[in-house]
Order: sequence, then C-alpha cells, then structure tokens
Amino acid sequence: MQERAKATRRSLLEAAAQLFAEQGYAATSVNDISARSGRTSGAVYFHYTGKEGIAVAVVEDRFATWSQLAARYGDETVPPLERLVALSYEIAHALARDPVTRAGARLWAERTVIKAPVPDPFALWTAAATRLLAQARLAGQLNERVRPARTARALVRAFFGLCTLTEALEGTTVLDDRLTDWWHLTLPSLRPQPSRGNLPAGR
Amino acid sequence: MQERAKATRRSLLEAAAQLFAEQGYAATSVNDISARSGRTSGAVYFHYTGKEGIAVAVVEDRFATWSQLAARYGDETVPPLERLVALSYEIAHALARDPVTRAGARLWAERTVIKAPVPDPFALWTAAATRLLAQARLAGQLNERVRPARTARALVRAFFGLCTLTEALEGTTVLDDRLTDWWHLTLPSLRPQPSRGNLPAGR
Repeated sequence: MQERAKATRRSLLEAAAQLFAEQGYAATSVNDISARSGRTSGAVYFHYTGKEGIAVAVVEDRFATWSQLAARYGDETVPPLERLVALSYEIAHALARDPVTRAGARLWAERTVIKAPVPDPFALWTAAATRLLAQARLAGQLNERVRPARTARALVRAFFGLCTLTEALEGTTVLDDRLTDWWHLTLPSLRPQPSRGNLPAGR
Repeated sequence: MQERAKATRRSLLEAAAQLFAEQGYAATSVNDISARSGRTSGAVYFHYTGKEGIAVAVVEDRFATWSQLAARYGDETVPPLERLVALSYEIAHALARDPVTRAGARLWAERTVIKAPVPDPFALWTAAATRLLAQARLAGQLNERVRPARTARALVRAFFGLCTLTEALEGTTVLDDRLTDWWHLTLPSLRPQPSRGNLPAGR
C-alpha cells in the first residue's frame, strides 16, 4: 500500500476509535468519522467499506489481536506467575487509557448492534495464561490442584469482568486498586501450598 | 391498581422481556411487544410511557432488585461461605434461564443505546456478599487477610464477568462447570489458613 493511503487509513481508524470509545457505535456516523479525521466520507467507504468495516478494523487493530502480547509474557528470566500478574496490569492499563483498545472493548460489548462479526481476544488471552501456568508448573511454582487450561479460562473471564464492571461503576482511576484486590483473592490459590515445604516429609 | 390493569402490565412486561432477551433492545419495537403480548401498542405507552420505560421496568422487575435475594442468604443454620457459594449458583441459574432476569442483564449491557438510566444490581449484590463475609469472620470461618467490603466488590465483579463472558463465548449450558472452576480458584483464599490450627501455638 502506498504511504499516502496508509496514512489515510490510519487517521480514519484513529478518529473512528476515538468516537467509538467516547460515544459508542450507534451514536457515531460515517460523517462524524469524516469530520474528526479531516478526510472525506468517501474515504471511509473506499478504505473500510463503511461503518461496520471500520468498527471491525478498530477491534482487530489492538483489542482482538494484542500484537504486543508475546513480548510482554516471553521474558523467561521472570517467574511465570509474576509475568501473568504483570500482563494483567498491562492489559488493564490499555483498556483504561489506549483509545484504540478502549474502542475495541466497547465495540465488542456493543457487538449485538453491529451488523458484522466482532472478533474478541479471549482465546488468545486464555492461551497465553495457559502457557504461563504450564511454565509455572514445570518450575514447581504452581499449586498442584491447578489445572492450567481450566484455570486460565476462569482467570481471563473473571479478570475481564472485573475491568469492565469497575470502569462502568467507578471509572478507570481505581482500576489498579481493584485489580490488586482481585489478585489478593486469586493468587494464593495459584501458589504452591505454603506450609508443605516447611513440614517434615511424609506429613 | 385494578386486577385487569395489573394483568395487562404483567403480560406486556413478560412479552417485552422475552423480546429483549432474544434480540436485544435496538431490534425490538413497541409493535413487536404489542404483537407478542396480544395487547395494543397504546397499552405500552399507557402503562410504561414507551420502549425506554418498559425496558427500565424489565430491569427493575428481577435483575436490578433481586427480591428473593434476602431469603436465599438469610438461613443462618448454613455456614456463611456456603450460603455465598449457593447464592452465586442461584444467580447464575437465573441469568441463564429466567427470561426476565436475562432480559435485565442484556438491557444493562446495552445501556448505552437506551435513552434512560438503567439500574444495576451490583451495589445490592456487593452488600449481600459483604454481610456474608462479615458473618463468616464472626464465626471464625474467614481467612484473616480478607477485608469483607473490598473482597465482596472483587467477587461480585469477577463473578458477573465470568457469567456474562461464559454465556457469550460458550452459551449457558456450561455455566455451572465454569462457576465451579472459578470457586476452586477463589474459595481457598476466603477460608482460614488450613495449616495454622494444626501447628503448635506461637509458630
């Protein structure tokens, strides 16, 4: 793609993301996207085939694909459970602050009014969490009762519910605090049972 | 209110709930509600002042007020944490199966497209969970590190996220299993530390 076309696509996508994040899908028109981006409405149809198309592109750009995810959980010098916790704060920060991620999450929540399939990141997040739990098991740092795939699935759903409900009920400024409360509640079950190692073998 | 008017209100509300649960707020018209209930469109305006009004009434009828909640967690012969777990399954079942509760949850999720404030049950649920955790503390059945109000808030948000995401991703048939996975992950942090009582005092 030519540089100029790329720049047009990007500015349309960012303008659309801002509007979707601020006012939702239903309240945003192609004319609004044109006005916010300083491009023509025709450019929205040419580059994205219209409002549904640009909405799906916004979701795919950041929320659903999470291209930086691999880098953020790949550092094997850090214990796996620590990487899992760090990753959750990274995702929470993006959901709170990055306009394209925020727009993606809002569009996913509003998917019933969008006449196109809206992708989601949950399978990707669950696979990443499963791998980290499996690595923790190999390193002897996981509670023996944890089953990585089932636990990862529950973690991802509970985590995303916590983030979206906290934002809806209290806004994003308290998100870190609420996430910390949740980890206090959740992390002890992931760690190996603390007393075992201190007791005589065979007890 | 006369019996006949009450019956009309109820049949309108149940028809609207079915439609909102099946196809969402935006896709449901006053005419649809009229057709499903066998009442006139005029009755929707007369009894509920229109589509927004009947949507809010649906949410208040079951989802946001949860009138049976008190009875379900008030039985003091059952340990408080056990009541908390039982209550979560009751709510999950209603979210999965009761059309009026389902409609309420869907309308709350779609609240941005409804031109009226949509109430939610989260403060009520959190207060109920806080009381149960406080009762568990008094009974010596709560981990000493748990702070009831903060933990209740995290529990309610994670629980609701788990239910709504499980339904969105897998449907409601697996909801009990997923809720059980989540309690396996969460309940150990609520219980008193198991080894303490078995160790000599002072350790």
